[in-house]
Amino acid sequence: MKSKLPARVVAEFLGTGFLVAAVAGSGIMAERLSGGNVAVALLANTIATGAALVALILAFGSISGAHFNPAVSLADAIEGGLSWPHTLAYVLAQFSGGIAGTILAHGMFRLPAISLSRHIRSGPAQLLSEFVATFGLLSVIWGCSRSRPNAVPFAVGSYITAAYWFTASTSFANPAVTVARSLSNTFAGIRPADVAPFVLAQLAGGIAATFLFRWLVPELRSSAEDVVVPHGRW
Amino acid sequence: MKSKLPARVVAEFLGTGFLVAAVAGSGIMAERLSGGNVAVALLANTIATGAALVALILAFGSISGAHFNPAVSLADAIEGGLSWPHTLAYVLAQFSGGIAGTILAHGMFRLPAISLSRHIRSGPAQLLSEFVATFGLLSVIWGCSRSRPNAVPFAVGSYITAAYWFTASTSFANPAVTVARSLSNTFAGIRPADVAPFVLAQLAGGIAATFLFRWLVPELRSSAEDVVVPHGRW
Amino acid sequence: MKSKLPARVVAEFLGTGFLVAAVAGSGIMAERLSGGNVAVALLANTIATGAALVALILAFGSISGAHFNPAVSLADAIEGGLSWPHTLAYVLAQFSGGIAGTILAHGMFRLPAISLSRHIRSGPAQLLSEFVATFGLLSVIWGCSRSRPNAVPFAVGSYITAAYWFTASTSFANPAVTVARSLSNTFAGIRPADVAPFVLAQLAGGIAATFLFRWLVPELRSSAEDVVVPHGRW
Amino acid sequence: MKSKLPARVVAEFLGTGFLVAAVAGSGIMAERLSGGNVAVALLANTIATGAALVALILAFGSISGAHFNPAVSLADAIEGGLSWPHTLAYVLAQFSGGIAGTILAHGMFRLPAISLSRHIRSGPAQLLSEFVATFGLLSVIWGCSRSRPNAVPFAVGSYITAAYWFTASTSFANPAVTVARSLSNTFAGIRPADVAPFVLAQLAGGIAATFLFRWLVPELRSSAEDVVVPHGRW
Repeated sequence: MKSKLPARVVAEFLGTGFLVAAVAGSGIMAERLSGGNVAVALLANTIATGAALVALILAFGSISGAHFNPAVSLADAIEGGLSWPHTLAYVLAQFSGGIAGTILAHGMFRLPAISLSRHIRSGPAQLLSEFVATFGLLSVIWGCSRSRPNAVPFAVGSYITAAYWFTASTSFANPAVTVARSLSNTFAGIRPADVAPFVLAQLAGGIAATFLFRWLVPELRSSAEDVVVPHGRW
Repeated sequence: MKSKLPARVVAEFLGTGFLVAAVAGSGIMAERLSGGNVAVALLANTIATGAALVALILAFGSISGAHFNPAVSLADAIEGGLSWPHTLAYVLAQFSGGIAGTILAHGMFRLPAISLSRHIRSGPAQLLSEFVATFGLLSVIWGCSRSRPNAVPFAVGSYITAAYWFTASTSFANPAVTVARSLSNTFAGIRPADVAPFVLAQLAGGIAATFLFRWLVPELRSSAEDVVVPHGRW
Repeated sequence: MKSKLPARVVAEFLGTGFLVAAVAGSGIMAERLSGGNVAVALLANTIATGAALVALILAFGSISGAHFNPAVSLADAIEGGLSWPHTLAYVLAQFSGGIAGTILAHGMFRLPAISLSRHIRSGPAQLLSEFVATFGLLSVIWGCSRSRPNAVPFAVGSYITAAYWFTASTSFANPAVTVARSLSNTFAGIRPADVAPFVLAQLAGGIAATFLFRWLVPELRSSAEDVVVPHGRW
Repeated sequence: MKSKLPARVVAEFLGTGFLVAAVAGSGIMAERLSGGNVAVALLANTIATGAALVALILAFGSISGAHFNPAVSLADAIEGGLSWPHTLAYVLAQFSGGIAGTILAHGMFRLPAISLSRHIRSGPAQLLSEFVATFGLLSVIWGCSRSRPNAVPFAVGSYITAAYWFTASTSFANPAVTVARSLSNTFAGIRPADVAPFVLAQLAGGIAATFLFRWLVPELRSSAEDVVVPHGRW
């Protein structure tokens, strides 16, 4: 029943691309229209991102598992759900898809294909935010992927909707999306110099949640292959 | 179990009519109340449209498949899910239903039945947006119609909610709705001269996604008759 | 498995009461906080109402069917799903529950228990809006109550969320709620003199949709007893 | 299949912690960005809280039942679903998790770990609001936990989304969250002196709904052990 690797890699490329286009594109639209009220702009950005996640995970979940996120693929690999060569293929597809998503969003809004962001996002509070954001994301995924796999798209979409507001960093929680957003000097951007610490905090948060859930739900690991949005079936 | 063609055609007429009434009507209400903050107006327009799609697809899905969109019916026909004569009947019902929806919205808001829009929506960035919007819409439909048909209403509603913000055109993604909106010189309108390029970009995007998913999910085609919100059952 | 009549009547009383408290209470809160931006106030009112409907239909659906609306109970009676004596009991519970909801909302916001609204809502466009709003509501209910009963709470919540914006009357669509709102001189109010035409338009819309669906989905009627959110099971 | 007590207690600690971090953190973010429009701030706070509840109940429901709320655990204990020693463990985890959530939110937003709130919330209207809010919350939980356990996360998330707006107190409805919010002198705070009356009103509302549903749905009690989001399975 599982899709073959090329189809899965294309699904990860497309899904991550659309996700970044949704994040960056809705940020551009929101900033242009909101007349300087940042809360209104972030609300539009939030609703678009959460809704995009629901739609994209539903669309690509049965093909690739709809990770769209190297932290998720890494966690899945640690638990034995994804082989390491496949993990590498997934991660490459996610990073390249994310960058393509930035270029696509810029094309739709008549901006240069790439522009390095000057949006400073640094300091311990930002890194704590990213650790917490990714810890929470992986907790949500591990927590409902086994007992309620059909609810994962709604759980992830809802989680990120909330996390945009309750973390000081607006919850990137995704290394591929972080790199892609560093190439967009718009509402959703992040200064390239701030990317590496963000990614490290994200991976630390994701790994911590993974080990916590190994203890919380011991049955998870033995069925890991089918977990994190089961590949190829629902 | 399938509904007969007259019932299906009436369902497509009513559903497309309500969809256009929701898009145009909520745009009128939003513009009147928002005091010039376009982001707030578009947010209201977005939430009303996404919610209307969820409700209408749930209401009419078991009768006609709830296409409400010639690009969707065309894709379904290409994959063998809808015969060509039925496709023609669907498309006629969608165009006439959409126009009826505009007239209905105008009636509820005390406007002349028809008014040609002067809202310019042209240029390559707009057409790229419509290509992307419809490519994404059909990807979402094909991606979850077979593995998770019950989730299609939520996937489509969520997708359009996001796409209103991440495409520069606010994602018409529907030839019948595009024509209907050209007859409304209000918030949601589009200048009649800009309709044909929009429709071509939409059809190109929809067809591209259909052929992509033929490769991504080869099993889709053999079961195409039951796909795109299965007709007559869930 | 069905709940007994007293439990069902109490469920209708409580559900309609909470629904009106949600509509009126959120209107009061929204008006107080929104600093004169009516679109923001209506957006908050809309989100609160739609979410309340989802929660309340889920909570009381398995007891009484969660009508909370004389137009729905009447339609159910016409189709043979509810006996006429039970319909009378439901409708009385809905009207008294709605009035209790107004008093409750006023109590929570430190207002006099009852205050006659001076909010004028009259004219053909308003009545057309109410006809359309209730026609659509009953279409949504009949359309998915048989093929997808579990989705009814989400369909109805989504529909009303949309209809608040796409009808000029903000979609009362419910005679019991209309009467209850006439007793609240706040954001959600309606002048008592305008209640009767609203109710007539609502009943006409609901009955029209019921007869349309008798033709659209002939199987509906033979299973009517279990329809409109099946009583006592899900 | 049930998780062991230590895992359940950790799940209650984490879930309540994330819930409070979501409520307080999104309040801080919303107040900073909204430029003084309290309705916009509360709308963001509402959407973040409702979405967090959906995600967290989905994530931890299969481990601990996802109470996150002493009023819910108490009601479950009254109905025989949770032993009294376990109830004590749950409640301690909820209070300590809530306080940890406040500290976490403050850390992410660079505020002192603890700051006593000066936000006055007193008077009969506020207490009536908390009684109603918790009465409604427990009604929603008891109403759908048996007949539709899979819908509980969405029912609770929707209910609180609505109740933020239709109660004058913005619906704390949770003693552990109330205490935790008293330690945050930010948007979501409550003056410590106002905590005890809030908690009493919440417990009264929760107990009243529990006894009402004992009469409304007599079958509930005999299956109480599996109710309030069944522990360890879905």
